[in-house]
This record gives sequence, structure tokens and C-alpha cells, in this order.
Amino acid sequence: MWRLHQFTLCPFSRAVRFGLLEKGVVFELVDCLPWERGETLTRLNPAAQTPVLENGSLVLADSTTILEYFDETVEKAPLVGAGAAERAEARRVAQWFREKFYAEVTAPLMRERMWKRLVVRDMPDGRVIREAARACEAHLQYAETLLMERRWLAGPTFGLADIHAAAQLSVADYLAGVDWAGHGQVKQWYQALKSRPAFRVILGERMEGIRPPAHYDDPDF
Amino acid sequence: MWRLHQFTLCPFSRAVRFGLLEKGVVFELVDCLPWERGETLTRLNPAAQTPVLENGSLVLADSTTILEYFDETVEKAPLVGAGAAERAEARRVAQWFREKFYAEVTAPLMRERMWKRLVVRDMPDGRVIREAARACEAHLQYAETLLMERRWLAGPTFGLADIHAAAQLSVADYLAGVDWAGHGQVKQWYQALKSRPAFRVILGERMEGIRPPAHYDDPDF
Repeated sequence: MWRLHQFTLCPFSRAVRFGLLEKGVVFELVDCLPWERGETLTRLNPAAQTPVLENGSLVLADSTTILEYFDETVEKAPLVGAGAAERAEARRVAQWFREKFYAEVTAPLMRERMWKRLVVRDMPDGRVIREAARACEAHLQYAETLLMERRWLAGPTFGLADIHAAAQLSVADYLAGVDWAGHGQVKQWYQALKSRPAFRVILGERMEGIRPPAHYDDPDF
Repeated sequence: MWRLHQFTLCPFSRAVRFGLLEKGVVFELVDCLPWERGETLTRLNPAAQTPVLENGSLVLADSTTILEYFDETVEKAPLVGAGAAERAEARRVAQWFREKFYAEVTAPLMRERMWKRLVVRDMPDGRVIREAARACEAHLQYAETLLMERRWLAGPTFGLADIHAAAQLSVADYLAGVDWAGHGQVKQWYQALKSRPAFRVILGERMEGIRPPAHYDDPDF
């Protein structure tokens, strides 16, 4: 049985869970908070980062690496696309969200509204939050331009890019960092995601000590 | 003909060049500095980051995405490995260097010793440099443990992980940020890389205004 070491507000863990659920892979969750630097996590992944997926002696780390592994070994619900050019576009957009959106939006929100609240018991820095909001707005605009000519973020079919984008956006949204107004295409795309059973499982969970805004798991937000 | 938009000290461009040269792909270089935010780069890649590879209407961005594309389309010199587990390990280690080593070592060195010198004409911050040196030491130790049981960083054959690690390390080394002493396995591995014609091409280049240390391109350093 696969065991996924993760925590509720880890965007990279969410991406892995979303993908595994879409593919019908059976796994159990092991909650772990990277800032506690637990022995198990550090032994499994010297980077001491979630997610890590293990099954006996096989240990997989890094969200895209894990998703690519299952796309190569499980035929159901292909995530990376068919042709080489389509696969490159899926990976490019996935990397955009997992790296750029994370650095500019999710990471500062997690630091200010999760880590400061749960770990160091400090007040969030309003300037950082406002900067993250500005960055989020630019990312939503970019997603909007992509979705003007495509059904999903990287092309005609759902896949890796949508998973990474949804994972990042959902954590930012949980932390009240996303203003959806004025982004009709993105909202429509996110509504379609919200009705997928795999994503609904993730949106149904709560991180102890932090409540998401009311619209967070509402499919008609 | 493929055109690679890049600059000499961009570690991600180096990774792409290294991989393309190993695979025998013919391409020409287009020099561009991301901080100048030139129109061409921003049009090709809205992230305004190097590397971007273009060929007619096909545009590829993001270093791993580009290397995966050529691993799927060019049979010569496979970079990601054979079995799914080996491929996952290659991607994990590659991502380690491209994300973690970059954030902790290459990026601060580039800011302090390249950007400040060439762009804002400011003095480097000694504290940041020392922190990068400490982080680099930890990464070399990690590479040392990997190489105790493997010929190359992710297994018995040269590939994606070695390319990303060499690309990051070579930029840090150019900026005098790597202390090789006490890391015999890593030195031996890097010596083997230095004698590969593809990597020699990259080490033969200079960034105007910054000179690397004497050992930089010496295979017997």
C-alpha cells in the first residue's frame, strides 16, 4: 500500500493527491509538518519536504516526479498529454504554477497566514499579503489568456497543468488570498475542477486552527 | 534550426545546452539578459525567463521541460533512464539541484557577484555569500553520499540529474562559491564531467566583466 506523507495545506501534496485520486491509485495519508523536521520525513526525503510517497523500499519525492511516475505506470487518466509538443506545454504550465505562483503567492500566504499563526504566533505582515494579492491577480490574468483559447490550461484535455494550478490556487484560496472577481474564464475552469470527485475530497478537509472563507468549497462560488 | 535564448551564467540555460549537445541536437545561441526584459524574450516566454528554445512556431520554455521533450523525440543518449523507478530518481535528484541548490547557492551568488557587479554596481553582501557557502557545503556532502553508492548522481548512467547538478555547480564555481576540498567523490564525478566535450564547450565561455577562478575549467583541478 502506498503511504503519502503530507499535510493539508501543502500545495505540492495536494497536487499528488489530486493526481493519484484521478488515476485511481489507492494510498493512505500520513500527516506530517515539515517545520517539525520529523525523523521519518528527513529519512525518507533528505530535503525534509512533503510530499513523499513510499511503498516498501520504493520512495518517491517531489510532486511532478511522483505524478510522472504514475503517468508512466498507470494507464488510466493520462495526465501529461499525447504528442511531445503537448507534453512540453503541459509541463511548462505546470512548472509555472508550481514554481512561480508558489514563490509569489502561495509561499508568502502560507508564511503569513499559516506558519505565523500556527507556529510562531505572530501577526501577518500586511505589505507581504498585499504583494501576494497583486501577484495572484497577474497570475489569474495569465490563466485567463490561456483559457481564452483552450478548454483546460495546457490544451483540450485535463491534466498536469490543471492539477498543479488547482493545488496552488486552492491553498491560496483557503488562506483568503484569491480575488476571483473579473476572471470569468478562470472561475468557470475552477468550477469545473470543484465538481471533480478527486478535488472535492481535498477541498473537504480543514487545517486545524485555520478556517477557509465561505466560498472555498462552494462549487457555485 | 533551433534557437536557444540564453545567457552565459544562466544555470538553466547551461542545463539545456549540455543536454542538447549530448544528444547531438543542432542549435544556435541568442544571447539575452532577463533583467533587461527584452520584448522577444517576454513574447516567447511570459515568465520572462531564460532558457527558451524556439523553432518556427514551436516554442519550449523551462529547462526540464525542454530536456524531457528532446528525450522523448531524440533517441540518442537517453537522459532520464530506463525503468519508472530509475526515472523517478533521476527527476528527484535533478529537481533537488535545479530548485534547492539554485535557491540556496546559485541564486544568492548570482545576485551578489553577478547582478550587483554588472547591473546595479553595488558591493556584494558578505553575510549572504557566507550563507551560500555553508549551503553549498551541505549540498556537496549530500552529493558525496549519493556518489558513495553510484557511479553517477542518480544511478549507473549519466543523465538528467548530472546535467542539472553540473549546470548549477558550474555557475556557482564560476562565481567562486564552491570549495571542493574534502569531497573526493564529488570532485572525481565533476572531473569526469569536465572531460565531456559537451560540458567543455560551456566551461570555455566567459561572461563579460566577470572572471572565474583559475581552477574553473581545469579538468585536473
